[in-house]
Amino acid sequence: MGGDFAPHAPVAGALQALEELGPEHSIVLVGRTEVVRQQLDELLNGDLAHLRDASNRLEFHEAPEVIEMTDRPSAALRGKPNSSMVVGTKLHADGLADAFVSAGNTGAQMAASTVLLRLHPGLKRPAIATLFPTAREPVVVLDSGANVDCSPQELVQFARLGSVYAEYMLGRTDPVVGLLSIGEEAEKGDMVTKEANHLLSGGDAGVNFQGNIEGRDIPLGHSDRGDFDVVVCDGFVGNVLLKFYEGIAPMIVEMVGKHAGVGRPELERVFGQLDYSEHGGAPLLGVRGVSIISHGRSSPRAIKNAIRVALRAVESRLSAHVGQRLAAAVPSVSDSSMDDSSSMATGGAA
Amino acid sequence: MGGDFAPHAPVAGALQALEELGPEHSIVLVGRTEVVRQQLDELLNGDLAHLRDASNRLEFHEAPEVIEMTDRPSAALRGKPNSSMVVGTKLHADGLADAFVSAGNTGAQMAASTVLLRLHPGLKRPAIATLFPTAREPVVVLDSGANVDCSPQELVQFARLGSVYAEYMLGRTDPVVGLLSIGEEAEKGDMVTKEANHLLSGGDAGVNFQGNIEGRDIPLGHSDRGDFDVVVCDGFVGNVLLKFYEGIAPMIVEMVGKHAGVGRPELERVFGQLDYSEHGGAPLLGVRGVSIISHGRSSPRAIKNAIRVALRAVESRLSAHVGQRLAAAVPSVSDSSMDDSSSMATGGAA
Repeated sequence: MGGDFAPHAPVAGALQALEELGPEHSIVLVGRTEVVRQQLDELLNGDLAHLRDASNRLEFHEAPEVIEMTDRPSAALRGKPNSSMVVGTKLHADGLADAFVSAGNTGAQMAASTVLLRLHPGLKRPAIATLFPTAREPVVVLDSGANVDCSPQELVQFARLGSVYAEYMLGRTDPVVGLLSIGEEAEKGDMVTKEANHLLSGGDAGVNFQGNIEGRDIPLGHSDRGDFDVVVCDGFVGNVLLKFYEGIAPMIVEMVGKHAGVGRPELERVFGQLDYSEHGGAPLLGVRGVSIISHGRSSPRAIKNAIRVALRAVESRLSAHVGQRLAAAVPSVSDSSMDDSSSMATGGAA
Repeated sequence: MGGDFAPHAPVAGALQALEELGPEHSIVLVGRTEVVRQQLDELLNGDLAHLRDASNRLEFHEAPEVIEMTDRPSAALRGKPNSSMVVGTKLHADGLADAFVSAGNTGAQMAASTVLLRLHPGLKRPAIATLFPTAREPVVVLDSGANVDCSPQELVQFARLGSVYAEYMLGRTDPVVGLLSIGEEAEKGDMVTKEANHLLSGGDAGVNFQGNIEGRDIPLGHSDRGDFDVVVCDGFVGNVLLKFYEGIAPMIVEMVGKHAGVGRPELERVFGQLDYSEHGGAPLLGVRGVSIISHGRSSPRAIKNAIRVALRAVESRLSAHVGQRLAAAVPSVSDSSMDDSSSMATGGAA
């Protein structure tokens, strides 16, 4: 029921995913079954008539409530226990599904995942890892919006989470981590970034740390020190950057089309590489399980790709690897509890 | 002597500016006179032979020391009082020049301007205002890197500074200000941004505040609430975004050229609109005077455009208007002194 184009996009995307993924996979559609079935019938009598076989691997699970995009996450969770978000996450938590995918309210998905799936030890909140296309290969940027006002210790955790993602989801060997700042020197940046650079440089962090990188390095996928796979930043910066990147492709299609006389379809094909829907879904890293966040504006194609991301996360045992990496970084657990106490202090002063 | 291509770029850019600006203007080249004159001779005996007349309006002022890009700003200021940065800023402070332009060490330029030109009351530090090309008209983004770890009160001051810039430098009537955040709702964002939204919404700020905008709105130059002229953010976010934007144009030229078979020169002409050198220089807002920061990688063309920006700032009496706007916003002065005391507390705790 989630996302700007529900139920059309989720139902059509699920059908397309089943077609691609093969007969051993099935998908449970969680929501108002009557509405979902009606949407399915429309698709099977229309554009997607050729996917009738695949539709036999769809199941339905009733969830009468819907969390709206404007609902406040924690209130929605308490107030709508029968929403598709809560019910779907519970299906996964109870082992009745291997993963959960949604294009609905991101905050509510984070809250539901944190409460129902729980987090690996050493984390206070999950992080969102997003793939940014570069001139080279995509790089993982995290956090992309789940956490603002981060502590240096949280940035170190993001470095670990991103390394696991790059290794198991993207197949990168000993992934290289860059810390996003405003200069390549360790002493450049705001207070949190400078301290995070110090912690990451110490070696205890257990990641292959390259040092600070700058905004201009991201589209290239490398800095003066070489290629990187993971970009670590606060969720405020990451979210601004992600949305800025999303906004640029249409602007450039417009400009190039107007001035250089290049055809729009041709350009849009090229800029598909800059299109969020290509990658489809961002795993909520740190939860014990697989919860994939899709863009609110997800098309059927984006949903299909999000389902593929979910499958890859399950097959690569992403969550188990995250748990192992965090457990191996013993100092991080105490860092994190230190950090808890500093948050409490802030709360007390407010 | 500043920038990656000195003395070539500053000398060639100054010549080109004189040619364009007409006979009533002259430029003082500050630096190692022998080196500067030798560079000039080379240009006048080579590519720029046609600008010999313009060169009669060049003057020379000896400054034997050079602040390197890697020098620490405050140490450089004390240790190199005869640097082109210090000597040039002093010429302007003493009224012997109407403006100062440099492609050198940005931190040192900020420090020199703050100490020698001084700031308008109500400010602790100057801000850097940068023009971002959009699908519509350029928008002013500030701060673009002069200030990290900003207070909400500082963001309010940026809103005022940006409004004056948009009005007097860009000719926008009653410029619209957006606050960069991670959601359009007032309660979205980190702690500083949420508090800044509250202060800006109050009406005392004296700016035409639209509310929060998101990263995706910047390339469009408008949000769902309409067009905006000024984007307010912390200097960390602004600098990351600026450099990201700079890095994207070359990446896209590469991608489009490869996939769509469009000629490189054609694309580069289009992406000139995304090129920093088009706009050339960013005024250091808040100083009593005109100090223009050029990119370290400035070409002669970028320097020429920076000189044009300086001239526009002088002719529009930008600095005087900034002073008037800040003085009119009486609450801001007390806000700012409140903010000073909180900085002191932070200093004491460190």
